[in-house]
Amino acid sequence: MMMSLDGYTAGPEQSLENPLGIGGMQLPEWLFPLAAFRESHGEEGGEVNASTPIVEGWTDNIGATVMGRNMFGGGPGAWDEDWKGWWGDEPPYHHPVFVLTHHPREPLQMQGGTTFHFVTDGIESALAQARDAAGGKDVSLGGGATAAQQYIAAGLVDEILISLVPVLLGGGTRLFENLGRPFPQLEQVEAIDAPGVTHIRYVRKGVAR
Amino acid sequence: MMMSLDGYTAGPEQSLENPLGIGGMQLPEWLFPLAAFRESHGEEGGEVNASTPIVEGWTDNIGATVMGRNMFGGGPGAWDEDWKGWWGDEPPYHHPVFVLTHHPREPLQMQGGTTFHFVTDGIESALAQARDAAGGKDVSLGGGATAAQQYIAAGLVDEILISLVPVLLGGGTRLFENLGRPFPQLEQVEAIDAPGVTHIRYVRKGVAR
Repeated sequence: MMMSLDGYTAGPEQSLENPLGIGGMQLPEWLFPLAAFRESHGEEGGEVNASTPIVEGWTDNIGATVMGRNMFGGGPGAWDEDWKGWWGDEPPYHHPVFVLTHHPREPLQMQGGTTFHFVTDGIESALAQARDAAGGKDVSLGGGATAAQQYIAAGLVDEILISLVPVLLGGGTRLFENLGRPFPQLEQVEAIDAPGVTHIRYVRKGVAR
Repeated sequence: MMMSLDGYTAGPEQSLENPLGIGGMQLPEWLFPLAAFRESHGEEGGEVNASTPIVEGWTDNIGATVMGRNMFGGGPGAWDEDWKGWWGDEPPYHHPVFVLTHHPREPLQMQGGTTFHFVTDGIESALAQARDAAGGKDVSLGGGATAAQQYIAAGLVDEILISLVPVLLGGGTRLFENLGRPFPQLEQVEAIDAPGVTHIRYVRKGVAR
């Protein structure tokens, strides 16, 4: 996940107009110039740098994604069925996506292989369903911070990739908060110095690698 | 400064027994095995790894240090003149150190070239005195977090070296907090992947390097 130097994965006052909160659009600034990013959005050209393998790795061997309601968007409360996520008709997932929510909704099939499934019976159920759907591949935890916190606290996250951005947001949602006790034990696997960002990969202690 | 993954430079409940707060002694765990560290404490042997140049750089071209009262220690309030810092008779600074405090105290000359000066008229005065004393060399901001926050907020810090440790403290003192508005603008200069820690160097935008 992209994180500011002061620990926020989104700025304050997230809204439909400001999905990453105030100042939050500074978090992916390193990403937009990359050829690997532009290509996934049907655009040509762009840079190749130390972030390229990281961005390519986001989708490598991923068979399913789990995300929180806030990341899927559409505001809190009952569903407005017109809301189909932030990503247009062909979301960049191309595999089943399991959205944590308190409000039931029929699966939503999009173009390009992405189907959103809405899971109302908790994080473990969503993970189990995603594992089944992934067919032996990995399950990606898409975010946002609140969903990630719950999975980390439950000891269900094997690997965390932090893209630490040299920006201060001063408020918003922190990833490493509300993690319960005892704290998850993490091990640093690698750190990559890239233009405008440092990528650091952590694994849960005891996870084979 | 050493910082936990959740942003703390010291854990909760700092005290004489627990100068880095609860759990805070995990922050320098990567440091202790290093030959560069052991040598500065008169011990032989130890490891040489990617952290070595970082640790050697801490003292390179440093002519004076500024630190907060809490980092010098001895509790809040009026001085107990028996308290001479955490570092024994020969502190590892070997140059003048300016301690921010509300309580006047005579300079304290230690062995090995370290003299502690107690500054009661604010951060800018302490920095000016340190610059004078440094004789053209750099001034190091030793910490702790509260002093660092004040200097960062005032735009007086040219360079910040974060040693990010894969540990969660869940409470304590955060470095990147209370920084005022507008936020300091930082630029990432380099990131170094070392065993058990990632060192990231930031400069204030606009500072020549």
